[in-house]
Amino acid sequence: MRAARLHEYTDEMDDALTIEDVDRPSATDPNHVVVEIEGAGWCQTDNHAIEGMWEERMGQTLPMTLGHENAGTVAETGDDVTLVSEGDTVVCHPAMTCGICRACRLGQDMHCENLAFPGLSTDGGFAEYLLTNERAVIPLPEGVDPKEIAPHADAGITAYHAVKKAVGELNPGEPAVVVGVGGLGHIGLQALRAMSAAEITAIDVKDEALTLATDLGAHHTVNSRTEDVAERLDALTDGAGVQQVIDFVGADETLDYAPNVLAGGGDHHVVGYGGHIHEPAQALVDGDFAYRGTLVGTYPELQELLSLVARGEVSLRTSRYALEDINDVAAKLEHGEIEGRAVIVP
Amino acid sequence: MRAARLHEYTDEMDDALTIEDVDRPSATDPNHVVVEIEGAGWCQTDNHAIEGMWEERMGQTLPMTLGHENAGTVAETGDDVTLVSEGDTVVCHPAMTCGICRACRLGQDMHCENLAFPGLSTDGGFAEYLLTNERAVIPLPEGVDPKEIAPHADAGITAYHAVKKAVGELNPGEPAVVVGVGGLGHIGLQALRAMSAAEITAIDVKDEALTLATDLGAHHTVNSRTEDVAERLDALTDGAGVQQVIDFVGADETLDYAPNVLAGGGDHHVVGYGGHIHEPAQALVDGDFAYRGTLVGTYPELQELLSLVARGEVSLRTSRYALEDINDVAAKLEHGEIEGRAVIVP
Amino acid sequence: MRAARLHEYTDEMDDALTIEDVDRPSATDPNHVVVEIEGAGWCQTDNHAIEGMWEERMGQTLPMTLGHENAGTVAETGDDVTLVSEGDTVVCHPAMTCGICRACRLGQDMHCENLAFPGLSTDGGFAEYLLTNERAVIPLPEGVDPKEIAPHADAGITAYHAVKKAVGELNPGEPAVVVGVGGLGHIGLQALRAMSAAEITAIDVKDEALTLATDLGAHHTVNSRTEDVAERLDALTDGAGVQQVIDFVGADETLDYAPNVLAGGGDHHVVGYGGHIHEPAQALVDGDFAYRGTLVGTYPELQELLSLVARGEVSLRTSRYALEDINDVAAKLEHGEIEGRAVIVP
Amino acid sequence: MRAARLHEYTDEMDDALTIEDVDRPSATDPNHVVVEIEGAGWCQTDNHAIEGMWEERMGQTLPMTLGHENAGTVAETGDDVTLVSEGDTVVCHPAMTCGICRACRLGQDMHCENLAFPGLSTDGGFAEYLLTNERAVIPLPEGVDPKEIAPHADAGITAYHAVKKAVGELNPGEPAVVVGVGGLGHIGLQALRAMSAAEITAIDVKDEALTLATDLGAHHTVNSRTEDVAERLDALTDGAGVQQVIDFVGADETLDYAPNVLAGGGDHHVVGYGGHIHEPAQALVDGDFAYRGTLVGTYPELQELLSLVARGEVSLRTSRYALEDINDVAAKLEHGEIEGRAVIVP
Repeated sequence: MRAARLHEYTDEMDDALTIEDVDRPSATDPNHVVVEIEGAGWCQTDNHAIEGMWEERMGQTLPMTLGHENAGTVAETGDDVTLVSEGDTVVCHPAMTCGICRACRLGQDMHCENLAFPGLSTDGGFAEYLLTNERAVIPLPEGVDPKEIAPHADAGITAYHAVKKAVGELNPGEPAVVVGVGGLGHIGLQALRAMSAAEITAIDVKDEALTLATDLGAHHTVNSRTEDVAERLDALTDGAGVQQVIDFVGADETLDYAPNVLAGGGDHHVVGYGGHIHEPAQALVDGDFAYRGTLVGTYPELQELLSLVARGEVSLRTSRYALEDINDVAAKLEHGEIEGRAVIVP
Repeated sequence: MRAARLHEYTDEMDDALTIEDVDRPSATDPNHVVVEIEGAGWCQTDNHAIEGMWEERMGQTLPMTLGHENAGTVAETGDDVTLVSEGDTVVCHPAMTCGICRACRLGQDMHCENLAFPGLSTDGGFAEYLLTNERAVIPLPEGVDPKEIAPHADAGITAYHAVKKAVGELNPGEPAVVVGVGGLGHIGLQALRAMSAAEITAIDVKDEALTLATDLGAHHTVNSRTEDVAERLDALTDGAGVQQVIDFVGADETLDYAPNVLAGGGDHHVVGYGGHIHEPAQALVDGDFAYRGTLVGTYPELQELLSLVARGEVSLRTSRYALEDINDVAAKLEHGEIEGRAVIVP
Repeated sequence: MRAARLHEYTDEMDDALTIEDVDRPSATDPNHVVVEIEGAGWCQTDNHAIEGMWEERMGQTLPMTLGHENAGTVAETGDDVTLVSEGDTVVCHPAMTCGICRACRLGQDMHCENLAFPGLSTDGGFAEYLLTNERAVIPLPEGVDPKEIAPHADAGITAYHAVKKAVGELNPGEPAVVVGVGGLGHIGLQALRAMSAAEITAIDVKDEALTLATDLGAHHTVNSRTEDVAERLDALTDGAGVQQVIDFVGADETLDYAPNVLAGGGDHHVVGYGGHIHEPAQALVDGDFAYRGTLVGTYPELQELLSLVARGEVSLRTSRYALEDINDVAAKLEHGEIEGRAVIVP
Repeated sequence: MRAARLHEYTDEMDDALTIEDVDRPSATDPNHVVVEIEGAGWCQTDNHAIEGMWEERMGQTLPMTLGHENAGTVAETGDDVTLVSEGDTVVCHPAMTCGICRACRLGQDMHCENLAFPGLSTDGGFAEYLLTNERAVIPLPEGVDPKEIAPHADAGITAYHAVKKAVGELNPGEPAVVVGVGGLGHIGLQALRAMSAAEITAIDVKDEALTLATDLGAHHTVNSRTEDVAERLDALTDGAGVQQVIDFVGADETLDYAPNVLAGGGDHHVVGYGGHIHEPAQALVDGDFAYRGTLVGTYPELQELLSLVARGEVSLRTSRYALEDINDVAAKLEHGEIEGRAVIVP
């Protein structure tokens, strides 16, 4: 089968991956599921992976097929699989987990001791077929198109997971901020609207993104390129500050919002991760605030997100590309030229 | 009355404060309470205040009497005060709060919109008398000596508050780390033992502090001057990492423990605050962990801590000094030469 | 001033209260606030009070002016009051609390050790003026009519408080049930919609109420007079059962829903209170469910509810009556003939 | 192999079960684990099962081997099992769960859609061998005797689970009540001591049980046969009432404690289940309290309990009996003549 593979780490996005023929995976374990890919979302993390940012953590050996936002049709199942059968359409939670270790037993999928992450630690979905397991697949309701849903597998639940943590701390009318209304942020914003009655301000550097934010229900918008973020938020909150910042950008500049815009006891959720935190400990003590990292989300959270999608409360902006165009997609995202989410259709 | 006052910010601790005569405060508001000080704890924050570290945040105007860990006997009460009467012994929560603003109504004393903080924003307790209000005083049970209890007013509840947040995330048998077994840390360690069934490791640079930690119930100790902290914790947790780090030091070096020792989903509680956090956002994302600042604690938490003290589950190591010796105390603490907590007895 | 007063407990609603002249209250305590009533909601609890159901618990002495859902204009303030001034419009949280006891300090207004409850324990708002205190009043934003907002003072926050507890247990897409779409229920339903992404079923015995429920956003409705509730909910949840039942009726029949409709680990929130619970302990154990009583709500929760009202996410159905018509209102509510909420305009 | 089997429901405990020869189970599924039983605890639920109290709920077909508190040595494993191998000693969580359904994914084992419960829904452990699965077994640390640990499999985690829910609501110094210091209660009491700093009162009808309670760390005891429970608790709490009642008895009389002894906002945890709740809804509303049913506990909770056992913070009182004596055990427990927990050693 054809697959888009990374042979060496590079900062050049425009020919990072090679389209080549590899063996089709098969279900060698009783819990295995092989999925024929119909859509695979391209993620900023794919760019980071090409740069080598996940080599050490994931123990990668190259060449490897990228692609961790996968949806398609079940092509083969191991002997013990009961949840799905050949021909079922599914979306794939990005982590293959064991169901046996303590983290799995606690419901914390992403901390599974035996986790594999196709697309980062094993071959992923920028290919005709993907090998995953029963605990990773969620059957799609009739009428849901795998090509439409694929980016929820990672972008979606990552945004959802961060928002859910923030919602737990947000009373009706309290101010929340969404930083970055791109691939993840535009999902997070919709989830925040659907799950809370918070007063939402969206921040971005592009006016089109802010227009989208308003369309999706943001109560206020701030263009951080042309406006003073702290001043605007101070005015919008009558000086009280913001309870929750959900930072889908994670640049040095946005990470520094916390001490300047948070109300006492607030949280700055770190979802995007290009930059660094540089803060005196006194700032966290004085402001009684937290930086809370957030890593993907769980399988039940993906189910919950799909219920929001099914009810029309969250919708995705996607554009589709052939497998052959994958390096173009990588380069475009690097230059901020992808609107919504790019989906590879092999 | 006599009071120890700061006239200008300085890095020289050994003659920072001046003992002088000032007017005794009186209850000019119906909620005021004037307390004759019997004990006032010296805190690392006093050193930081002398250096000017709280000038901006607290809007200080010098000269000012320091001292925010106060206990004594009620000398005068405003007309509306019903909780205490002249002659009652009390410990003083460090914040004078209004009881009217939304934060107060939510039970979040430290975020009161009208907060005053005697010893940092108004005159404090290194003096014969202190002006505070009804919402700040907690009557002491008979037999409790104000001189013994004073440091709980800030060191105690700050440690307790951080520990309580950590305990909410700690199941029995899960690993927790106390960094720094000094004035706050030795209280926090005891509270952690009393309130949880966590497996506790204490870290310090001094062997005597680690011996104290063992006496107070730590299951393991690590001397960070002579041992590799990450390696030891990895071994102690079978590679799983630590759920909760409570950092009473807050130096650059200890703040960097988080990405190296935390289990996925863990927290690094920032209590001490001399240093800085310098971390890539990717570390927080990948480790799914949080840095959580922690600012003092609430009035009900001080009540809870006193119940631990009353039952003998938390005890303080204190040493007493006359008001005249106050600059010596400042200098000694700066050089790490105070064991437990110094209490000024005016 | 004129007031509608109860002189003896009775089951006859149509002449239970007497309109008479009494002294206007004045601010005798520095925290007192006297409010000129513009609207006072009539509540099922007023009927219960007339029957004597709150005599023992509230230590009532007759005669007494009823009315605990009050809004109006500040007419007089005690010397210490800073939050409001004469002429400000306010809605009154029903409880006068002390701000000093442990419950108040924890933010649990309704458990205040020194609580007074005008309309149940002291004279209430079916009168020209009401005596309350600073901690009970919330200033209204400009443009909000006290006559419109009054019922939120008790019906509103009681419904809101129960819903907020339920929302804490409801993930997106999970099923919730609102039992009774009357005075409280129609508020609760709107709050549930605004604060969660649950799948909501409304249950009532009247088709008009169910039509209102659909208008207000219920996803499904069940008429419990003509349909089998357990069967319908079983079908709507694919046999999985309901996570949260919010029971605004509290009759024997509705209280028995819990073991028959709840999913394992679910909650049945008891808000209405005419009937009794009769269940074997085994039912609660086997179903792993809870009956959770719910008493009014807190002052900050009333602020939060007002933010929902301000944003148009919760609106009230009210009808207005003169003080002279108060016994008619009592009788009508007893016979289920009030739509939405009746407001007395003295 | 020999097994103690129930052929028909009866109220006569002294010859309810028949010892007979049946086929040894074998691992027919890749996830199966066959355990050679070394200890199987006898539980009040076994008496209830003999009476037919679980017939409908569990869909039982007789004859059936009872016994759901099992520990022993792994005798055989299915092909996919990696957690344990032949010869390992294990304790068995009572539920065989699927790891695939939403409840399992959320970490809520007891709500598994595909749950089997050996000893109640399939053949249990009053036999030489037991069939269970990988997700049910927890390897024992070296030196832990299966015969000692067996009752923790159900009595232990049920008590632990209820206590853990209560601990989440208990601040240091706040009053908690343990009702019934028998098989479950004496474990629950120890867990409560180890996991909280609550002020604990134990209630029982037998003085020996109360002496044991004091030995295990109860701060106060009440003999409900000779003392007025509500009066004593009122005195012990200065009229404030109890935050949390954990009711290991669940008789009509103890279930009625809630409205009479709870503080506002408190909980009455229903663990034992012989009796009924009969309360007006107004009691729950007025007292703002909850009855919270509690069903066994989860696999990770059993791990946590074992960590308390390993550290000596929870110890069991057990007595051992041969399989032949099983009907004597049933009869003795029915008459309240078993101290601590009876363990059958086949």
